[in-house]
Amino acid sequence: MESAATEKPDFPRQFARTRRFTLGAPCAFTVAPDGTRVLFLRSTSGTDPVSRLWVHEDGAERVLADPMVLNGEGPVPEEERVRRERARESSDGIVAYACDRHARVVAFSLGGALWVVTPGGSLPQRVPTAGPVVDPRPSPDGSRIAYVSRGALRVVEIDGAGDRALAVPESADVTYGLADHTAAESIGRHRGYWWAPDGTALLVARVDHGPVQLWYQSDPARPERPPRAFRYPAAGTANAVTTLRVLPLSGEPVRVRLPAAADAEGRPAGEWTDPAFEYVTGVAWDAHGPLAAVLTRDQRTEYVCALDPHTGAAEVLHRRHDAHWVTALPGTPARTASGALIVHRAVGDADGLEVDGAAVTPRGLHVREVLGTVGERVLCAASEDPEETHVWSYEAGRGCERISEGPGLHTAVPGPGTLLVLQTRTPDGDTVRLMREDRFHGDRLREDRLREDRLRAGVRREEPPREDVPREDPPRENPPRAGVPRVDPPRAGVHHAGVQVGRIESVAARPVVRHAPVQLRLSKRELRGRLFLPRGYEPGCGRLPVLLSPYSGPGVQLVVRAPSWPSAVCQWFADQGFAVLVTDGRGTPGRGRAWERAVHGDQLTPVLDDQVDALHAAAERHPYLDLGRVAIRGWSFGGYLAAGAVLLRPDVFHAAVAGAATADQRLYDTYWKERFLGHPGVRPDLYDAASLPTHAHRLTRPLLLVHGLADDNVVVAHMLRFSAALLAAGRPHAVLPLATATHGANGEGVADMLLRHELAFLRTSLNARVTSAGRPVRPLDFTARALER
Amino acid sequence: MESAATEKPDFPRQFARTRRFTLGAPCAFTVAPDGTRVLFLRSTSGTDPVSRLWVHEDGAERVLADPMVLNGEGPVPEEERVRRERARESSDGIVAYACDRHARVVAFSLGGALWVVTPGGSLPQRVPTAGPVVDPRPSPDGSRIAYVSRGALRVVEIDGAGDRALAVPESADVTYGLADHTAAESIGRHRGYWWAPDGTALLVARVDHGPVQLWYQSDPARPERPPRAFRYPAAGTANAVTTLRVLPLSGEPVRVRLPAAADAEGRPAGEWTDPAFEYVTGVAWDAHGPLAAVLTRDQRTEYVCALDPHTGAAEVLHRRHDAHWVTALPGTPARTASGALIVHRAVGDADGLEVDGAAVTPRGLHVREVLGTVGERVLCAASEDPEETHVWSYEAGRGCERISEGPGLHTAVPGPGTLLVLQTRTPDGDTVRLMREDRFHGDRLREDRLREDRLRAGVRREEPPREDVPREDPPRENPPRAGVPRVDPPRAGVHHAGVQVGRIESVAARPVVRHAPVQLRLSKRELRGRLFLPRGYEPGCGRLPVLLSPYSGPGVQLVVRAPSWPSAVCQWFADQGFAVLVTDGRGTPGRGRAWERAVHGDQLTPVLDDQVDALHAAAERHPYLDLGRVAIRGWSFGGYLAAGAVLLRPDVFHAAVAGAATADQRLYDTYWKERFLGHPGVRPDLYDAASLPTHAHRLTRPLLLVHGLADDNVVVAHMLRFSAALLAAGRPHAVLPLATATHGANGEGVADMLLRHELAFLRTSLNARVTSAGRPVRPLDFTARALER
Repeated sequence: MESAATEKPDFPRQFARTRRFTLGAPCAFTVAPDGTRVLFLRSTSGTDPVSRLWVHEDGAERVLADPMVLNGEGPVPEEERVRRERARESSDGIVAYACDRHARVVAFSLGGALWVVTPGGSLPQRVPTAGPVVDPRPSPDGSRIAYVSRGALRVVEIDGAGDRALAVPESADVTYGLADHTAAESIGRHRGYWWAPDGTALLVARVDHGPVQLWYQSDPARPERPPRAFRYPAAGTANAVTTLRVLPLSGEPVRVRLPAAADAEGRPAGEWTDPAFEYVTGVAWDAHGPLAAVLTRDQRTEYVCALDPHTGAAEVLHRRHDAHWVTALPGTPARTASGALIVHRAVGDADGLEVDGAAVTPRGLHVREVLGTVGERVLCAASEDPEETHVWSYEAGRGCERISEGPGLHTAVPGPGTLLVLQTRTPDGDTVRLMREDRFHGDRLREDRLREDRLRAGVRREEPPREDVPREDPPRENPPRAGVPRVDPPRAGVHHAGVQVGRIESVAARPVVRHAPVQLRLSKRELRGRLFLPRGYEPGCGRLPVLLSPYSGPGVQLVVRAPSWPSAVCQWFADQGFAVLVTDGRGTPGRGRAWERAVHGDQLTPVLDDQVDALHAAAERHPYLDLGRVAIRGWSFGGYLAAGAVLLRPDVFHAAVAGAATADQRLYDTYWKERFLGHPGVRPDLYDAASLPTHAHRLTRPLLLVHGLADDNVVVAHMLRFSAALLAAGRPHAVLPLATATHGANGEGVADMLLRHELAFLRTSLNARVTSAGRPVRPLDFTARALER
Repeated sequence: MESAATEKPDFPRQFARTRRFTLGAPCAFTVAPDGTRVLFLRSTSGTDPVSRLWVHEDGAERVLADPMVLNGEGPVPEEERVRRERARESSDGIVAYACDRHARVVAFSLGGALWVVTPGGSLPQRVPTAGPVVDPRPSPDGSRIAYVSRGALRVVEIDGAGDRALAVPESADVTYGLADHTAAESIGRHRGYWWAPDGTALLVARVDHGPVQLWYQSDPARPERPPRAFRYPAAGTANAVTTLRVLPLSGEPVRVRLPAAADAEGRPAGEWTDPAFEYVTGVAWDAHGPLAAVLTRDQRTEYVCALDPHTGAAEVLHRRHDAHWVTALPGTPARTASGALIVHRAVGDADGLEVDGAAVTPRGLHVREVLGTVGERVLCAASEDPEETHVWSYEAGRGCERISEGPGLHTAVPGPGTLLVLQTRTPDGDTVRLMREDRFHGDRLREDRLREDRLRAGVRREEPPREDVPREDPPRENPPRAGVPRVDPPRAGVHHAGVQVGRIESVAARPVVRHAPVQLRLSKRELRGRLFLPRGYEPGCGRLPVLLSPYSGPGVQLVVRAPSWPSAVCQWFADQGFAVLVTDGRGTPGRGRAWERAVHGDQLTPVLDDQVDALHAAAERHPYLDLGRVAIRGWSFGGYLAAGAVLLRPDVFHAAVAGAATADQRLYDTYWKERFLGHPGVRPDLYDAASLPTHAHRLTRPLLLVHGLADDNVVVAHMLRFSAALLAAGRPHAVLPLATATHGANGEGVADMLLRHELAFLRTSLNARVTSAGRPVRPLDFTARALER
């Protein structure tokens, strides 16, 4: 079997084998407070799925712990499997670790066993525990390890002595120390306990899942496997009850008394409200004590509370209201060294930053995440241009300054003192560099200083950037039309921000396809878009069928100034003979509060309108886009959008592939659906209008539904109910069940073959007569032959 | 939405609403021993799903029990739901009943409640019971009712007194009085206990399901529903252990000691043998005592045993060996009034009848079922011509005589004395008549006697046969080619066998499509076939795409001289513009032992070869069949055959729809798979070769897989594993999951829409340019538009 792009035949296989190019990329950095080393995780190659624990020290990298040589690996505990699923963790081996405050004692779990390694000293040691271990975390002084086992929060001395439970679940429905489904999947809080800085106690989330409805999932391809029962808080149903407790190592537990009811301030009349603080969106414990951010069920009121670890009393430090919803800011609640509180704050149309009660970010700066604090300085990731994210610094007296340079996506892990791990994704590739802080406040780069630093740190000579990924030059024969300015041409070369004192290599594979997207701003809304054309395509070759490949849902952007696996997939589809258009419309992050909130009450119409507008604007500019052959594909929200597109706009879209689509809004979780649509009991009309089965009778276009039967996030009931509604309405459609796939649909034989399957369906459905790689392609059946041509 | 046959637009809906034309048809006849009445079940119309209990008496019918007016209906017990699924019961209400020997006391269950009605006396009375009731059966004297509840065999007096358990399951894995999955699904034994004729005891099957592997089935479209765990004895795995016990109403239970091991006689060397008698294929208790037929696991040795109800000892009355397998004969074991044993016996190539040790049926007569005995006379259903089944009578001294007349399928329920309920399915329609026995031995029909009988019995004037179903005249412009004789032209009119003394009306709907199949004998094997052409089709209209719609598996015939729902479906597809060919090939019943056993070791190749041969022979005779556009569709074994056809013979077949296909031979049950393929551990090669995933990489044709997710017979794992193998092999295909459907795939919104879905897929896949009902049809997308043209 060969794809049409004969010189690069193996993209789908590469895509699957590299687990979407994630394998081999370093991640999870920790900078030691003394600046001597950086801990991180990475596998040994772009196709090696086993992640190791590494240290970068003295200019060199070495493996601290290698799962391939450690003994005694057992099965991954179910809670850990679920945790990884929520965290979109796709590798095996050591996929997480935690360390003491000095980064001298590192703990990780492997097949349920607890391991400890000291970067400066011993080999990994297995610490005996009372049961399978999830999320182990050393105490700040490194003397002991806390961990979760079978719902209990336990502590064991580092030598294996004194293993004891600090809290034992009162029933099978209770867990201590873990995040519940909604927190991990939709809020972004993946952990459930936090050490006190002095190591004398832990702040622990107790979750009672009892009120949450029980869902079941079997493995219908392997009927001998017992089904799994799990708690799923679907929209309008009960949430898990999360409470906090302070568990001292000695002494009695203290129940935290979170606010019981919110005032009604800021809440619009006539809409559903639920003022109970059901969500614990963020927790921290710093030198000033524990902090918790809590959010009402209606998501319109957030309180940040200081907690008294001795009495459990909560003092409200900050209140925030929003007529639509309050967005939880990753990295908060947090405080500076002096105790100045850091929270989100609307600054004009942007969600900016407030420190110590004052707005500190300029208008137009959208703060995405607080990365950490260094003394009184606050580091955050923020976007001026939605296509880029940069590292910014705020410090009283110095104001807010951008400290990363160059186009792309930048983020950082601050190290104490002078160091920072700077991760950059640019059109030229990804780098992870250990930077000196010197330059961050405007110092000029001095080559001699750089050279000196390099010699000192033993950094090897920097190699020229790899050129597999071409710069985003427009296709030669496809100039932008006169009068339509080309926006933000990519800048050449890698811009070094600060002084590089080290570099952590990535061994991730680079896609065999060559990205060459055209950057677009489309329609009156200046929708950010990318147009991918077949390699070697020239307009004289004929008009191209169009494939839209959006996500365009809340929380995710596809149109950024850096390559990504979705863009590689787009280029592969383009190389098969399509013009592939990706557009981020209303509802996507990074373009302001109003832009994000435009989908309140209706998650489909405005999003779809933007896709249609973008298509038409692109076709006006690029007349070789054949509006008579337009398909759309997507996954998750993107799958929902794709199916909605053929249902509601058959005049525009001629075929769709909808993967893991959130077809039935009532089947998705409380937090993520009630934010946009309210309570289904109060506004059933919104849920009905936004659910695909409602519109099943309108289908007149070829539609392929793909869904993993093991998906516990967007459960397969979404697809099955939609398919049943289509069947009952007499609307033929095609389904591809992925027997073993979860929401990620990873894995060889699935991720790769799914691309091929989609391609065959799209070609058949569009009856595509396209020129691909210079060769004519005949109209195709929806068969394997569609792939062989 | 309109189908192409505009004058009869509603066939799919009619097909679904009538539950395949089963509703309204009378069934389950019991003739009272005094000849005064016939009990039966029937709903009130062809679309009424609620079956009532009726009596035909004094020439009139009246309702004995109507579920619509009886109170207290609860949920159908799970065991009863399963029993109905195995029995292919598709109606609701009173779907089964049993009565005492005089047919004076009738018991039935309704929503788990026990009801008793006396046809000559009281209204239905609810009898209180200790638990939900399954399979209630009055004692022969009508004084009490036995029933199964939660696996216990219980007895209650008819007035509700003395409810007691005769056997209580020792564990949750044990049941008393029920048939296990294999017995009910594959052997055809649907019951699990039998009253002694004197009413003092019962012979009860005890089933220990403990050794059988546990399978799970959830309802993925309704994740809140708890999954169902059930025992499924897949090929090569442990069967349920069925033993028999005699349970006296007073006194100690007696364990029946069935033979423990068979001798090895008749077993070919080098093949898998398992001589343990694992199957109880038939049980009876007549005036001479209890009888049981048991079969070895390898199905090559059957013993018929007389059981001593007092000691449990078994005396082997009859041994049968077969180098391939012994076919269980429905209605046996049985004995005549004098005690002459009735069993199957090979007579030449036919499975004929043996009575009292002697073969009694002529060569060439294939006995299908023993219908009962009347004194020394044995009535059976048997075929000379595989397309017909007739009622035959054997009596010592008179020999074997056919007593039904006219083309079609005939069966009977003997009544004691002179009466018989004769059910006939002929090309002219279905009738159920109460016949006098006078004529059965050759008396000539006398009109005056008939008129006299009618007056006496109060039969209303017989109406002329309805003409909705046309006689099987060949299409006008499609004469058989010279030299190819037209075989068995249908005979006009209804042939009355015997003297009709009553008639039980059917109110079943008649298909709105008009059958007009061409009868065929094809290829050197004289394969029996039917060719359905579009209504009004004339060869000058152009060549027709061909649709094969076979079953052609063991135990089922489609090509018979009587209309059926499959033939109505074929005609509907034909009316959409296809030439539809149905052929029964090797492996089907009614054509002899060698014909049936030709699939031993390979259930696919010979069957597929016959389909191909039939197609080519038909096309040679009818050149308007377009061999460039050939599709095949089927369900269950037929679905397996359809998928196998496109996998293995893409040179012949251009598209397939495979419904509920038995794709993975290891996933089907012990009895039905080991018969043909042996033990999967001993002959994995046979299982591999016969399983579709093995051949997944060969798919080059459009293939639609349809499967019910609630199918507990051919579980959806068959489809999912096949689909996964196709995906992994890069073979695009389409799936249609039926979220709530069992193996029957009944119900409005499913059965009807499935036909439309199939049609759209077939049209798209064949890119059918056909003339249907005189109108040109354009090539179609696989969309709803495919149905609207």
